[in-house]
Amino acid sequence: MKNTFGQSISLTVFGESHGEAIGAVIDGLASGIEVDTSRIDAQLAKRRPQGKTDTPRVEKDEYKILSGVFNGKTTGTPIAIVIPNENTKSKDYNYGIARPAHADYSAYCKYHGYEDYRGGGHFSGRITASIVAAGAILLDALEKKGIKIGTHILKCAGQSDRPFENVSEDLALLANSSFPTLEKGAQDAMTEAILEAKRDGDSVGGILQTAITGIDAGVGEPWFDSVESLLSHALFSIGGIKGIEFGAGFALADMRGSQANDALEVIDGKIVTKTNNNGGINGGITNGMPIMFNCVVKPTPSISKEQQSVSFIENKNQALKIEGRHDPAIVRRACVVVDSICALVVADLLTQRFGTDYLAQ
Amino acid sequence: MKNTFGQSISLTVFGESHGEAIGAVIDGLASGIEVDTSRIDAQLAKRRPQGKTDTPRVEKDEYKILSGVFNGKTTGTPIAIVIPNENTKSKDYNYGIARPAHADYSAYCKYHGYEDYRGGGHFSGRITASIVAAGAILLDALEKKGIKIGTHILKCAGQSDRPFENVSEDLALLANSSFPTLEKGAQDAMTEAILEAKRDGDSVGGILQTAITGIDAGVGEPWFDSVESLLSHALFSIGGIKGIEFGAGFALADMRGSQANDALEVIDGKIVTKTNNNGGINGGITNGMPIMFNCVVKPTPSISKEQQSVSFIENKNQALKIEGRHDPAIVRRACVVVDSICALVVADLLTQRFGTDYLAQ
Amino acid sequence: MKNTFGQSISLTVFGESHGEAIGAVIDGLASGIEVDTSRIDAQLAKRRPQGKTDTPRVEKDEYKILSGVFNGKTTGTPIAIVIPNENTKSKDYNYGIARPAHADYSAYCKYHGYEDYRGGGHFSGRITASIVAAGAILLDALEKKGIKIGTHILKCAGQSDRPFENVSEDLALLANSSFPTLEKGAQDAMTEAILEAKRDGDSVGGILQTAITGIDAGVGEPWFDSVESLLSHALFSIGGIKGIEFGAGFALADMRGSQANDALEVIDGKIVTKTNNNGGINGGITNGMPIMFNCVVKPTPSISKEQQSVSFIENKNQALKIEGRHDPAIVRRACVVVDSICALVVADLLTQRFGTDYLAQ
Amino acid sequence: MKNTFGQSISLTVFGESHGEAIGAVIDGLASGIEVDTSRIDAQLAKRRPQGKTDTPRVEKDEYKILSGVFNGKTTGTPIAIVIPNENTKSKDYNYGIARPAHADYSAYCKYHGYEDYRGGGHFSGRITASIVAAGAILLDALEKKGIKIGTHILKCAGQSDRPFENVSEDLALLANSSFPTLEKGAQDAMTEAILEAKRDGDSVGGILQTAITGIDAGVGEPWFDSVESLLSHALFSIGGIKGIEFGAGFALADMRGSQANDALEVIDGKIVTKTNNNGGINGGITNGMPIMFNCVVKPTPSISKEQQSVSFIENKNQALKIEGRHDPAIVRRACVVVDSICALVVADLLTQRFGTDYLAQ
Repeated sequence: MKNTFGQSISLTVFGESHGEAIGAVIDGLASGIEVDTSRIDAQLAKRRPQGKTDTPRVEKDEYKILSGVFNGKTTGTPIAIVIPNENTKSKDYNYGIARPAHADYSAYCKYHGYEDYRGGGHFSGRITASIVAAGAILLDALEKKGIKIGTHILKCAGQSDRPFENVSEDLALLANSSFPTLEKGAQDAMTEAILEAKRDGDSVGGILQTAITGIDAGVGEPWFDSVESLLSHALFSIGGIKGIEFGAGFALADMRGSQANDALEVIDGKIVTKTNNNGGINGGITNGMPIMFNCVVKPTPSISKEQQSVSFIENKNQALKIEGRHDPAIVRRACVVVDSICALVVADLLTQRFGTDYLAQ
Repeated sequence: MKNTFGQSISLTVFGESHGEAIGAVIDGLASGIEVDTSRIDAQLAKRRPQGKTDTPRVEKDEYKILSGVFNGKTTGTPIAIVIPNENTKSKDYNYGIARPAHADYSAYCKYHGYEDYRGGGHFSGRITASIVAAGAILLDALEKKGIKIGTHILKCAGQSDRPFENVSEDLALLANSSFPTLEKGAQDAMTEAILEAKRDGDSVGGILQTAITGIDAGVGEPWFDSVESLLSHALFSIGGIKGIEFGAGFALADMRGSQANDALEVIDGKIVTKTNNNGGINGGITNGMPIMFNCVVKPTPSISKEQQSVSFIENKNQALKIEGRHDPAIVRRACVVVDSICALVVADLLTQRFGTDYLAQ
Repeated sequence: MKNTFGQSISLTVFGESHGEAIGAVIDGLASGIEVDTSRIDAQLAKRRPQGKTDTPRVEKDEYKILSGVFNGKTTGTPIAIVIPNENTKSKDYNYGIARPAHADYSAYCKYHGYEDYRGGGHFSGRITASIVAAGAILLDALEKKGIKIGTHILKCAGQSDRPFENVSEDLALLANSSFPTLEKGAQDAMTEAILEAKRDGDSVGGILQTAITGIDAGVGEPWFDSVESLLSHALFSIGGIKGIEFGAGFALADMRGSQANDALEVIDGKIVTKTNNNGGINGGITNGMPIMFNCVVKPTPSISKEQQSVSFIENKNQALKIEGRHDPAIVRRACVVVDSICALVVADLLTQRFGTDYLAQ
Repeated sequence: MKNTFGQSISLTVFGESHGEAIGAVIDGLASGIEVDTSRIDAQLAKRRPQGKTDTPRVEKDEYKILSGVFNGKTTGTPIAIVIPNENTKSKDYNYGIARPAHADYSAYCKYHGYEDYRGGGHFSGRITASIVAAGAILLDALEKKGIKIGTHILKCAGQSDRPFENVSEDLALLANSSFPTLEKGAQDAMTEAILEAKRDGDSVGGILQTAITGIDAGVGEPWFDSVESLLSHALFSIGGIKGIEFGAGFALADMRGSQANDALEVIDGKIVTKTNNNGGINGGITNGMPIMFNCVVKPTPSISKEQQSVSFIENKNQALKIEGRHDPAIVRRACVVVDSICALVVADLLTQRFGTDYLAQ
């Protein structure tokens, strides 16, 4: 299905970094859901470059909703959102020399040289602006159903934030944070480490931790649409994400069953687990605990140091020095994209499970 | 789509651990592909319990191909494979007490008590026997196109194997291995550590490393069907897998771009990368290098130690001691399942890309 | 998606006429639905050849439910039904000579000669036995929700039945009919006309009329999953169906808007239409009136008269005389197949609309 | 999947009649295909109202391609086309009174009153403008592969055109026709009959006949994605289409097998059929003959005569006189929409069959 994800609620994305516009179509969302444009603005602001750790190239993201909203509420028909690209004057690109760790060469092999290579084209992180705009509508709808989603930077450039503890409180903390960390000092330490890499003409990556609360137990499928399956499927679209682990994740390899198994207990009449090493999912199905996972984001591929590469047009070795200004780290900006993608997956799962009108009820 | 995965080539699974039979339907596979039943037998043998580190409960897996094969070759129509369950006499289960880290409680919330709970029902690892049988046909077809897939145990119970080095040679090494490790001594060390856990009435997990070679550059999609998306989607169906990382994975969080970026070069007229930190995938699309990823497998949930749990029928706390004999570790048996799932994803991707007849050409 | 149809509830079919077995997998059906095997038997009996107007080759259709049913109720996991083929000894087929109006030549072009050609292989009407078995479960579940589906032979071999009048009463009439017609005398007239064709070594077709009652208004989609879209998609799988018209259908071409438009009125507080020229569907969405449509079934292609054809192996003209005994008309047997397919489409639509558990509530 | 159709090539539509804009996203089209905007213009012109038989409300359809085209060629990534709505000032609508044979009431039941009812909203024929723009690109690409698609008005308001005879010549005739008929005089007779209905404040429907040539034998699936299935699925999205018949269609009900069966013969080394009663499709798969089908279009629901209806808000009877100017017949304008939808289905089928790059090769 390529640029579309989701079954009962789906998202289709289109656009290139330096084309006319980027955009997204949300389909299947229940009618009667209020569309709060200030929420869309706020979410887009989180994704927008800010301060010294991001690219200085800032776009206003002046989105337009072309369809699917009437009198401020969803109609139940597709919501098309378009964000014009403001700066489509592209300087001359050295097309044909692969930027290491970018999609230049793999895209060339797929599209045979017809790809719009300017600014990364359809592979650009720019596309995520439409995902964030669409995600804002979904996040808002989910919150009205008691479902909250939040992501913070667990690790960046060797600096760590504390993991989620009291998930509800922590999510509240993150809701309006422009640099999503939980621990005092984490932002400063990370910022400094990012700037250090920047000064070296280099870049850094990190680990994001996400929590989703408020989903009933009993959602998801054992084969093949486990909650892990759907979240990872959607999240691995985000450029730079190269790993995902649920609950205790890779640390489970060093545990024994007696440590890893989440003991159950009844608290206030509700069945919960004492630990959450399974990240809220058993057998692919939610168990009522928060869904928890970590994603690793690789260092931004665009660095200003000279790199060894090839011209795939001439099929020969060719050194490369990437000009221009780039994000030395995208971890901060990626958080809101992860939240948006999660909103899509969760909204779709719940609509499949409880029917078309569920999110508006 | 629940129990079906794949677009141009799809796999549908059905069955419960103690029901009449389990099975799978492969659809979309090209006509004219030889079906080598000895390969199916060999793959099923790899999955079957063996020795002291696996459950002593062994089934013969006497599969039947009901359709889609004629004169020893695929017809192009659905291939249905059925494997009868041999021992369907179930002892009395303590239905209603959740086994920690199992799907008992989440399944109950989803299926409202109508689920076939015997032996894990549809959540049972038993289902993977049909996936392995189906996967054998696909692996065979892929090999004729020069594509190889192999998985070894990188880590288990604190014991490590060496990672892939010369991938082609290592895959050859694994092809007929009954305990897939690369390094001399790894099998013994892991076996001993597993047995130690078993003696303690406990279980262990581990990390599996997989390599896929021979896929052309240019396969996969940037949004949303990246190669990482499709592999993770399918692999997270396997019970116990809680994390996946491609290439250098979570280690990328501690690298800088200058270390992480895979430099490119032309060798013998072919564009390759010096390192493979991106696991053969850039922007969701293959770059011609081996696809490499690791999966973490959590410790087998069934342990003989007493555990704290609940009766979800009576909604009260309830200690649980799981009787019977279980695998103290499933990492060895999981390897062939991972390979089979990969074969499905890769066969599907190639058929989408190059057309229905590609695998038979 | 080939041999699978449906989104929230799906059906996968497999098998060849002379292979080991045929079968079907229903996925997505709610848990807790009673599975009444006597209903399955009764539906299969309707499809089975009977009397002089059908082929004398009768199979017992001894189906087995392999999975998805536990203690007589659906578990919510895939229901696999297998029906072994009893008489798989195939006489020598003249493979390579296309039977006119059959799929022999088109199948050869698709499957390159690897198709199982015996008895029509995967194209055989035999496959519909599994659809009828699966459909019986769905029809039963739908009836408990007040939804009824029925089909009668409106026309066959020049003989007509009266169209539906009082739909509810007419559906009750059809429920246990072995030769589904509404008017006294229609069966005899049709039988006689079919036998006449048979005596001539020839065959006949006809028109089936179907009604579906009890579906709420507001189900279906304007683009592209209109109720007409989904029904026609699924129904055009049935071999021999070459046309479908909803409501007044092709007769609308000769009406003016003032005649064709269905006037609305409120009766007993409920909005209904005076006529039903739109067949219960406006803008692709149910309007609460019975869904009504007609399908045309072409004359059975297998006739005993000599026909002009070709050898597609030798690429030359070749006369053909089809041996063996065939149905001179399949219209009667097709009725229950149409009902079964409708049950799938309707169950899927309702599950999408109202959620996974709807049919069990 | 709602507003998206297609597997390897898909089309997503969005928009409402009086919203900001309508649009479409084509995904999966091969890279390197020339996009001829004059062809898009020409196709849109065919759909645009003209002369006295159409609505006098004409919009310029000034479409914009936002993505997926670079240097005049497709990039292989999604092509988003947006057509702003020019006249979005809506006069006061009598919302709540159902226009007979329109989707007002069924939409209300589905969307609970949140639907954008102005001008038919998402149900409006206006949406087909984006389908035609998208279809123009696909038709162009198909023609370069030797595939031609054309539709004429076989019948309208009691006046008939001759059916296709020499299909290739007839398609050439239709290519640039603004009133697609084959026989001299048909246009005048139909125009006069339409105007007569218009004078009576009434409307008329008709039958469209479509031919598709140049598709190889062997495309399509027996279950469930027969060529008939996919074409009918997509075509039944077009408002007003209430029936479809392939080949001889409903006339097959009155034939015997010996008449209906298409005899085969070898001509110039190529296997063809003497008649084409099966419309180029056997067993759901193309047989190399032209694909032929008829669609019935119901009379335009909007007429100026007073009609009996209901207020679904007040749940009471309510007479209705529809004001404004409407098409007394949409058959002419529907032809190019049918062609566009066929292009989508055929492009998708061929891309599935022969791979992603096929249409550009």
